Amino acid sequence: MAPSTTYRIDKLVIIGTGLIGGSLALGLRAAGYCRTVIGCGRQMETLEQAVALNVIDTYSTDIAQACTGADMIVICVPLGAMEGVFRAIPRQVLERAVVTDVGSAKQSVIDAAEAAWGGLPPRFVPGHPIAGTEKSGVAAAFSTLFEQRRVILTPLAQNDTEAVGAVRRMWQAVGATVHLMTPTHHDDVLAGTSHLPHMLAFGLVNTLAHLDETREIFEYAAGGFRDFTRIASSDPVMWRDICLANRVAINRMMSRYVNDMLELAEVIQRADDDKLLEIFTHAKTTRDRFIRFLDEGEHMNSSETTQRYP
Amino acid sequence: MAPSTTYRIDKLVIIGTGLIGGSLALGLRAAGYCRTVIGCGRQMETLEQAVALNVIDTYSTDIAQACTGADMIVICVPLGAMEGVFRAIPRQVLERAVVTDVGSAKQSVIDAAEAAWGGLPPRFVPGHPIAGTEKSGVAAAFSTLFEQRRVILTPLAQNDTEAVGAVRRMWQAVGATVHLMTPTHHDDVLAGTSHLPHMLAFGLVNTLAHLDETREIFEYAAGGFRDFTRIASSDPVMWRDICLANRVAINRMMSRYVNDMLELAEVIQRADDDKLLEIFTHAKTTRDRFIRFLDEGEHMNSSETTQRYP
Repeated sequence: MAPSTTYRIDKLVIIGTGLIGGSLALGLRAAGYCRTVIGCGRQMETLEQAVALNVIDTYSTDIAQACTGADMIVICVPLGAMEGVFRAIPRQVLERAVVTDVGSAKQSVIDAAEAAWGGLPPRFVPGHPIAGTEKSGVAAAFSTLFEQRRVILTPLAQNDTEAVGAVRRMWQAVGATVHLMTPTHHDDVLAGTSHLPHMLAFGLVNTLAHLDETREIFEYAAGGFRDFTRIASSDPVMWRDICLANRVAINRMMSRYVNDMLELAEVIQRADDDKLLEIFTHAKTTRDRFIRFLDEGEHMNSSETTQRYP
Repeated sequence: MAPSTTYRIDKLVIIGTGLIGGSLALGLRAAGYCRTVIGCGRQMETLEQAVALNVIDTYSTDIAQACTGADMIVICVPLGAMEGVFRAIPRQVLERAVVTDVGSAKQSVIDAAEAAWGGLPPRFVPGHPIAGTEKSGVAAAFSTLFEQRRVILTPLAQNDTEAVGAVRRMWQAVGATVHLMTPTHHDDVLAGTSHLPHMLAFGLVNTLAHLDETREIFEYAAGGFRDFTRIASSDPVMWRDICLANRVAINRMMSRYVNDMLELAEVIQRADDDKLLEIFTHAKTTRDRFIRFLDEGEHMNSSETTQRYP
């Protein structure tokens, strides 16, 4: 075995070894970035499965025990479980270890940390990888999940630079690009890009499920429907927590969206052909430009779009 | 060349050689099902492109001329152009040729036929293949588009059985399964399966496009967003026409959907965690069952779901 000094992280603790935590562990191990990975969670079976899948080396169901001597602790639990996890991490661990999380809403995580610790420790760096699939659980984890994906960090005023750098380098090691923004801005952006689309997909499936002709509706659904509803297969507990954690921004987005849909319904009702064409053309143009941007790495309008933390 | 008697269709006319018409022509040619394919349309360039791509043998921009002596005429134009095409097909052609269409709303096509012809000819069989991609145009056509896809025919009381059989066999020859239902029922089912999802996708892209942070929103959109918005890249003219043609059913579906979204927004607003979990779990369960059904050919509830024409 190579000497431990070749590893960037000596002891990595992953709290919550699901799709995200598991994939990060696999990616870091594949990159030879850490010496030992300790898994931590409430369910022994999951942890044993994670060991069997070579995602972690060993595990503990006790957070304090798992975190002792850790260099890096990554919290990958649903947002609703964050505060409990923070409370279970011993104070002295926070002196040494860098702590980060992967929560899809950031202000709520920061509030939970403050509530748990009575303040924000300099080595706690909130983060969020923009990656995932509709699947969940450690069996769905894979080492390349974060390649060419974005990770947003929302550093705190009190953060020490070295801790931010350690989290940044960890994500870069699994192929992600790291961007910094404020927690509030993160929450607004994600409400639009991710949370609203999920609400639409859950809503659509439920609307159809309540129709008399449900069976037929689903039988005649074409291929596009599979794509369109994929995100409705996402983990309900995770999405409950996201809705609770980011509900102000989500509700603001939903209001705008519902108003746009009501306007569209009204345009259809009055059979305004010109306006319909304008609405659909605008959507197609915007979406096609977005796809070109994704495919070619071309920026949509400007080259500087990330709001840097002041 | 084999004698023409081995072909099931001697002279096939495709009016509108776009994705659907072009793919049908390619599929039928690949199956050796027709001797000659005549393309018909308003744009010479498209028709010449169709010849160059071996989609059609020859073409005419004159509908009457193209249709003379035809055995089968398939109308693949946007819904708004249907009536004009019907008017251009000479009466005597209707005596011999079987005429069908691929319109995504059926009652409006039937109304247009009745308006154009002053009645419904026995050899006109309305149809709709549930297939397509977000792309359009003959360059996007491919011969296997209809394999294992459903085609809905909505035969008329006055149809002769042989004409319905000819259309059915034509679609089966390109690998589709053919189902019969009433025009109204078709329009209701499609409003849910296809038209509503398209409205949602167009609406979502437009909502996001109107935000201040549009560029960023799109930059941080993850992979799921690409899938989720794919159908917003569909042809705006086609969708304008579908909205106009099926606006009663679409509006009914949109009302239900908007009400469901308003209820969801309200549940998020009051932070009702149990209800959120229930809503998301219901959607996930329904969608997962639907995907299993698609993947395994398993029926969702019962074995007989197609409403047969009486």
